[in-house]
Amino acid sequence: MAETDRDRRRLLRTVVAGGIGAGLVTAGGASSARAEPAAREDVAGEEGEVRVAVLLYDGFTALDAVGPYEVLCRVPGVTVTTVAERAGRVRTDTGELSLVAERSLESVTRAEILLVPGGGQRGTTATMANPAVLDWIRHIHRRTVWTTSVCTGSLILGAAGLLRGLPATTYWASRPYLAEVGAVYTPGRFVEAGKIVTAAGVSAGIDMGLHLAARLAGDQVGRAMQLAVEYDPDPPFDTGSPENASPELQRLALRLLADAAT
Amino acid sequence: MAETDRDRRRLLRTVVAGGIGAGLVTAGGASSARAEPAAREDVAGEEGEVRVAVLLYDGFTALDAVGPYEVLCRVPGVTVTTVAERAGRVRTDTGELSLVAERSLESVTRAEILLVPGGGQRGTTATMANPAVLDWIRHIHRRTVWTTSVCTGSLILGAAGLLRGLPATTYWASRPYLAEVGAVYTPGRFVEAGKIVTAAGVSAGIDMGLHLAARLAGDQVGRAMQLAVEYDPDPPFDTGSPENASPELQRLALRLLADAAT
Repeated sequence: MAETDRDRRRLLRTVVAGGIGAGLVTAGGASSARAEPAAREDVAGEEGEVRVAVLLYDGFTALDAVGPYEVLCRVPGVTVTTVAERAGRVRTDTGELSLVAERSLESVTRAEILLVPGGGQRGTTATMANPAVLDWIRHIHRRTVWTTSVCTGSLILGAAGLLRGLPATTYWASRPYLAEVGAVYTPGRFVEAGKIVTAAGVSAGIDMGLHLAARLAGDQVGRAMQLAVEYDPDPPFDTGSPENASPELQRLALRLLADAAT
Repeated sequence: MAETDRDRRRLLRTVVAGGIGAGLVTAGGASSARAEPAAREDVAGEEGEVRVAVLLYDGFTALDAVGPYEVLCRVPGVTVTTVAERAGRVRTDTGELSLVAERSLESVTRAEILLVPGGGQRGTTATMANPAVLDWIRHIHRRTVWTTSVCTGSLILGAAGLLRGLPATTYWASRPYLAEVGAVYTPGRFVEAGKIVTAAGVSAGIDMGLHLAARLAGDQVGRAMQLAVEYDPDPPFDTGSPENASPELQRLALRLLADAAT
């Protein structure tokens, strides 16, 4: 496992340093097929780019997308774009906030990192049944370095057939559904299975994002990004996981979610 | 202080329950000037709304706005809207992500909660020097129940003249600038000064949001919202505050921020 981790990190650093041959032409167009990975531990190379594609869909949860975005976007060599069936405004699960998708599915054919956020029940299930989106996910996944999800985004990866037999996590209340897409629920703030990384609910994407930042550019950049977003959490309660929440509190949380959903 | 806290909470619960007289007509239009606060501890009343206005401006930081939004939007009685000089797409500090402002400044004349996110240096300083935005902030602040900020958003509140002589916090690297707007830097994940609540950098808005959710609707709803966003943080490093970061790491964080800024 540690060996695999090192291999992946080496691969990523090579990608960042300028592409590992014709297969990974960089978004900047200035691909230099360097044979050796970048030597520097602290900052990834300037010559290449790691393209992060964040899938947006009607009913996604804003923080699922924005958490990892915020800690990945400033990693040297990383560029982020938002992608949806159609470019333009995409509504979140509450209907009260919209993000802009910069690109349509057709216009994005490669990404080194794919991020699929979770959403409310309506948005998640509709996306799990949307062949255009699932085809696109499978296509992008073929050549990603990391394919990632937050919250119920793992169910969407699962619906695309990417999690069969693999350990994964998801939103706490959706854990039973992982089996339906062939995945094996595994506890963890995020779970790695080869190049697939699934994070737990909503805010867990921040922890996963920092982990990926460190993999991309070294621990020192990961530490710096944690400072950059002043991520020194001090929640007022200790009820952030169902293990610390009574059944009554769990029901209340689910009712608040359902009541606010569109 | 505890007494003031109780008073404020009572006020908020009264607002949620349907307005405290002509001064606080609810957004839903169905203002019933109840004399007594709502009795229920767990869920705020259905009759009124607490309107949260999130200011967006070119160069704001996405997570500053989305963190508190995500934990406030599902609190019973709360409605959230995004506001900018002009309605429509508003770019974040990296230029790679945009959120949609649903409303223009002119179209929003009241809000029970004002939230001012921070931004990159360009966005923050431009907003601190924008009379239209500062006038709007002052106008809204006059009748808010809470006026809040995340990160360098406190410097914008300060530029509007709202922090003179008050304890406040801000982004770790911007602490020295609080004095320039007459505020007194005070350590804390968030700092309350009467009805003004300022949060530390970026991710601190999540902690502040949960605190406000509990104030709005009681601790049980606060706990439920922490579970709803599965906020059980487990960062890979411990460098989320400058107190835990070497000067070298602080310089690296600031360099990454500067390099990614537009």
